Amino acid sequence: MPSTQILSTTQQSQYQAIDTPFLYVNKPVFINNLSQLRQKIEGLGANLRPHFKTLRSLEAAEFLLPTKNSPVTVSTVKEAEALASKGYTDIIYAVGIADGKLPRIAKMLDQGINARVLLDSVEQAHQLNHFCGSYDCQIPALIEIDCDGHRGGIPPEADKLIEIAQILTSGAASFHGVLTHAGESYQCFEKQQLIDAAQNEVAAAVQAAERIRAAGMQCDIVSIGSTPTAQSYQNLDGITEVRAGVYTFFDLVMAGLNVCQLTDIAATVVTSVIGHNPDKNWIFIDAGWMALSGDRGTAEQPKDCGYGLVCDDSGHVLSGLQVITVNQEHGIIEAVDGGVIDLAQFPVGSRLHILPNHACATASMHAQYHVFDTDGDNGGYEIWNRVQGW
Amino acid sequence: MPSTQILSTTQQSQYQAIDTPFLYVNKPVFINNLSQLRQKIEGLGANLRPHFKTLRSLEAAEFLLPTKNSPVTVSTVKEAEALASKGYTDIIYAVGIADGKLPRIAKMLDQGINARVLLDSVEQAHQLNHFCGSYDCQIPALIEIDCDGHRGGIPPEADKLIEIAQILTSGAASFHGVLTHAGESYQCFEKQQLIDAAQNEVAAAVQAAERIRAAGMQCDIVSIGSTPTAQSYQNLDGITEVRAGVYTFFDLVMAGLNVCQLTDIAATVVTSVIGHNPDKNWIFIDAGWMALSGDRGTAEQPKDCGYGLVCDDSGHVLSGLQVITVNQEHGIIEAVDGGVIDLAQFPVGSRLHILPNHACATASMHAQYHVFDTDGDNGGYEIWNRVQGW
Repeated sequence: MPSTQILSTTQQSQYQAIDTPFLYVNKPVFINNLSQLRQKIEGLGANLRPHFKTLRSLEAAEFLLPTKNSPVTVSTVKEAEALASKGYTDIIYAVGIADGKLPRIAKMLDQGINARVLLDSVEQAHQLNHFCGSYDCQIPALIEIDCDGHRGGIPPEADKLIEIAQILTSGAASFHGVLTHAGESYQCFEKQQLIDAAQNEVAAAVQAAERIRAAGMQCDIVSIGSTPTAQSYQNLDGITEVRAGVYTFFDLVMAGLNVCQLTDIAATVVTSVIGHNPDKNWIFIDAGWMALSGDRGTAEQPKDCGYGLVCDDSGHVLSGLQVITVNQEHGIIEAVDGGVIDLAQFPVGSRLHILPNHACATASMHAQYHVFDTDGDNGGYEIWNRVQGW
Repeated sequence: MPSTQILSTTQQSQYQAIDTPFLYVNKPVFINNLSQLRQKIEGLGANLRPHFKTLRSLEAAEFLLPTKNSPVTVSTVKEAEALASKGYTDIIYAVGIADGKLPRIAKMLDQGINARVLLDSVEQAHQLNHFCGSYDCQIPALIEIDCDGHRGGIPPEADKLIEIAQILTSGAASFHGVLTHAGESYQCFEKQQLIDAAQNEVAAAVQAAERIRAAGMQCDIVSIGSTPTAQSYQNLDGITEVRAGVYTFFDLVMAGLNVCQLTDIAATVVTSVIGHNPDKNWIFIDAGWMALSGDRGTAEQPKDCGYGLVCDDSGHVLSGLQVITVNQEHGIIEAVDGGVIDLAQFPVGSRLHILPNHACATASMHAQYHVFDTDGDNGGYEIWNRVQGW
């Protein structure tokens, strides 16, 4: 939530001087999100390996990662290279590897970065061995486990799991462990469903690791995680680390799953009113899909939030208002559930905050984040830059 | 369409050296799209004022705009400033103006740039006069006309049209004309519907201009346009200029409206296969919504193309294949209509091209475009940079 009502006078001028639309980050809310999950996961005896894909900002990494050796997950080689350039050393690239990307991974290894790749097929394991043999390097790999039929991975009980682990351990590459992601947890709208999904994720990863060890191989990393399940683990015995990303900013999809409250949403899009359609009772804003993204992640949730819920400039949710349409640089706000907007309360030029459906998607539309620290008497203002591209 | 089969040997090496995913532009197709529409509109006696929002690249502007005085449309002040920095002088910012943006417009006017703003309310007209009075400048404005109930604007027959024009002509600002956009043309799937939408757009703009002139005021600019209607005008009497943007790259939404062929699509996303799910007969690619955008513009068309159609690395459409799901850095390709994919034909590391649903949205996800000129024996390769932000 924006909480701009508690900005200092200096911050208010800084805030007003930024042209809309822009991404506003409430730093204390962000910091609290980071510490809450870290405490929970470390309290259960596992490491937290935050996913960098939501933030993709090296300035943000200083808060996300306590030390240069803190574990981190990335979704692109570009993120890994950016983190490596700042001295972060413990990286998993958690998207299936294609051999065209291996030279950049090998280069990071040469620089002393512990960069690992992910795969789920015999074909990829052979490709990796072949590359490592040709380039005289030893790229470590994890095997992706399918815990819930969501996307890719090897079922924990499959013969192929052992076969792939053997190809990696006996070849030029190296084998570091298993990794799974409970993607189906985004469909769990009941607390017990989330607890079950979390337990299932743990069980699948532990089963895979135990089978590999029973076959005589080491399995150092047992990695699980998704923001919904990360909030719901009861017991992490056998798990070495948990990955999550969206918890850093949180969003309406997560609020719809009851894994956060609206007040935990740390990133909002600040927008200006640019017109009205009195006949249709619409407010036009300068935040279209370029600023909000076109994400419709709440469309299949019990409460559909359109393209985002609306807060006033002080951070209070305007009940019943939604962004119902986005074009490139236009958004349309309407009252849902039969409400009526008093358009005179929203003059052209006035500012609103839009709570995002999906923080990863909304943040991806912004090359810079405008970060306000509302704690203390002389709260700061920082610009964080986003690492772009692949 | 990619047409990579006709790349020269040098180009093939350049193409292979670019890490996926990336935006590939077939330059001859792009150039042909530009000249086709320019010929048509100029042949009907109007000027073409291309919309820069699709391309947002100054390198591309050299092809889009024949001279530094060529008319151009923008959707952000940032685009206008970028074009102004390169000496382009004739700019309409075609999104409703909020007064917070006026200082940057005034600065461009000071630099000799003819930058105009758009508004559709008495409130905005008074705000503009007030600003111009306070800052001793004369910002020119157009009035947005609502021709089809799509979004904003003043109906051409409304009393308010004359009232706003009078406020502008009698105040510190200045009045340059009227502008409309047939946004509803995106719903016209029959040729005759498109012709009707085009005629309606012309009629609304001409009616508005004539009413303003009948009230004793000048109305120099009579501006209309959308890519679907731009292909369908029969007669542009009374119209001074036509705006369109997506025609530069074209896309599946436009192909679905029959205003282009698949072979006219100039921009595709090149992606690598990163895995398979044999049980589900899925191909995983490294193009998720970060590379493709999450646009689902074909969802409401007769032919739903998912998140994009699939071409092989030589540019041939792979019949029946679609990107059915996108996550941040994963796409899933499936055979629709009961087909089956022979996964062995798509090994990990092989490349595919994805035809985009919506060129504006897909291009917006890429800071750089990789442009291949396939004409001639020594075709070139260029990188075009995208102007980012607001």
